[in-house]
Amino acid sequence: MITKPYLLFLGDAPDKLAAKVAQGIKDWRPGDVVGQFRMKGCNADLGLQDLSVAEAAGKGAGTLVVGVANRGGVIADSWIDVLVEAIEAGMDLASGLHNFLENEPRLVEAAQRNGRKLHDVRRMNRNYPIANGRPRKGRRCLAVGTDVSVGKMYVALAMQREMVRRGMKATFRATGQTGILIEGNGVPLDAVIADFMAGSIEWLSPDNEEDHWDLIEGQGSLFHASYSGVTLALIHGGQPDALILSHEPTRTRMRGLPDHRMPTLEKLRDVALTMARMVNPDCRVIGVSINTSELDDTAARDCIETAQEELGLPATDPVRFGPGPLVDSLAENFG
Amino acid sequence: MITKPYLLFLGDAPDKLAAKVAQGIKDWRPGDVVGQFRMKGCNADLGLQDLSVAEAAGKGAGTLVVGVANRGGVIADSWIDVLVEAIEAGMDLASGLHNFLENEPRLVEAAQRNGRKLHDVRRMNRNYPIANGRPRKGRRCLAVGTDVSVGKMYVALAMQREMVRRGMKATFRATGQTGILIEGNGVPLDAVIADFMAGSIEWLSPDNEEDHWDLIEGQGSLFHASYSGVTLALIHGGQPDALILSHEPTRTRMRGLPDHRMPTLEKLRDVALTMARMVNPDCRVIGVSINTSELDDTAARDCIETAQEELGLPATDPVRFGPGPLVDSLAENFG
Repeated sequence: MITKPYLLFLGDAPDKLAAKVAQGIKDWRPGDVVGQFRMKGCNADLGLQDLSVAEAAGKGAGTLVVGVANRGGVIADSWIDVLVEAIEAGMDLASGLHNFLENEPRLVEAAQRNGRKLHDVRRMNRNYPIANGRPRKGRRCLAVGTDVSVGKMYVALAMQREMVRRGMKATFRATGQTGILIEGNGVPLDAVIADFMAGSIEWLSPDNEEDHWDLIEGQGSLFHASYSGVTLALIHGGQPDALILSHEPTRTRMRGLPDHRMPTLEKLRDVALTMARMVNPDCRVIGVSINTSELDDTAARDCIETAQEELGLPATDPVRFGPGPLVDSLAENFG
Repeated sequence: MITKPYLLFLGDAPDKLAAKVAQGIKDWRPGDVVGQFRMKGCNADLGLQDLSVAEAAGKGAGTLVVGVANRGGVIADSWIDVLVEAIEAGMDLASGLHNFLENEPRLVEAAQRNGRKLHDVRRMNRNYPIANGRPRKGRRCLAVGTDVSVGKMYVALAMQREMVRRGMKATFRATGQTGILIEGNGVPLDAVIADFMAGSIEWLSPDNEEDHWDLIEGQGSLFHASYSGVTLALIHGGQPDALILSHEPTRTRMRGLPDHRMPTLEKLRDVALTMARMVNPDCRVIGVSINTSELDDTAARDCIETAQEELGLPATDPVRFGPGPLVDSLAENFG
């Protein structure tokens, strides 16, 4: 559990894209952020108040989050002074970079001296059980994709926010670095040891009230040769009651796999439902989420309508047009 | 790469079953074993020559293999003196236990002092790449099961031995602890970090001659909630040309999952082929391997005949009746 609220550290981000983790936190949990810290030469700006470390501490910041990625995912030498200052001001640190805070001697030393925590959210930091496959109480929804990086995290976050707005009981369950930083906890599934993947998801999404929904963050794709095992472990550990099909309509080849063509949404529906019903025979596909960010408004609406007609399921781009149709469908299917 | 030949250490095994790793090595690679070492009170006997450490060293033993499992998978205190003696006699150590040789200070110290290696084959001991999904040269065969522990390793070993006997080019590719100790190398797939599972199998089974077969050791089951992700990574990293369906006919519930019924062989065929064809559109199911160890001879033959008729595929118990029909089928399908 990462202590909130956050100071979002943008460092010397060369552009807006380099600060996309911080952007995600600000977009989805604006109430959990006291401000941003930018170094000289930083070209990203989240439109938050610029704070010094001392000012952020004064506003009660519990954790400085490294919300920036530079080439290679390393922790830049030039950041260390600021990070040490934050520790000394009483903050924990959190990072999703490939290089770990825990491997920086000055940070480790400062954290020990001040009794603060270093959260490397790209690392498996606890032991998980082997999955037992037992049915659990409460409801679970999971987005599965025709490919990786098609908006599975965004649809879960958007649905959870809308469900809470409607007075439904809903929790976002993070399974990736950005999701964990947004929520403040979760399982870094792609860093978990193979034998414990499904068990880590059972742990993440335990028994709950009958009318409570876990919106489990999707990972990978059953069709993506590099990460499909992670996706299947997520489906079998998550035991979803409801599946969302996620798609990016302008892609023709799988991301990072130029030898592999994208599957259709129909194929995804059939394969995902087959796998999900092995652990939850009542699982249903309740809608389609389409990432239309590469399309203009007309093309986006056309694309969504086509999917809706072809699959006979509600469809939307949850970021562009809101997740309403998916939440409606969830309520209708399980009301 | 573990240096052969082996001295098989049976320790104080309470019964035959506790020495099953050693039994597997002796059964499949008898030429790689100089003898067995048994402590006082050992109730297992592989019928090999009993050797002292010095005698084994004199016969050129390169590695002492801990071929015994006691309760909890720990390295017993009473073993340490013998293990240190083996290191001092010039041997490496290898173990598939849950507790690592590397965590025993006396063994670490002795290995360092003598320049010997400690092989913990239940541990990921190198970095693997992310899978790239590119087609590779050479042929690959993989057994997939209706459940875990249905004989997938045995069918791969039996086929490889028979193929070599017939003058075919065939290599066994180990993906589990016993398989790695038998072969002397491999990937401990269930200990690999999620993101690298499929990549580790691409690494294990690289480009090869067009008429060369890799017999890849199967793991888990697509239908087993605890381990299905490992199996899918194995299928997508392995890119099999040929699948064997493996089954244990007396089981009604999945191993360790009393809530889950066993799937049929037909269902396994359909699901496994669907997943395998995502990365290798020409993949075929070429036969069925049935573990009949719980049946008498008549029942075993009946069971195999039934499977053969129902699936229209060659079937055998490769241990009881030999893997001939499967190797015939491989040759016919890909001749």
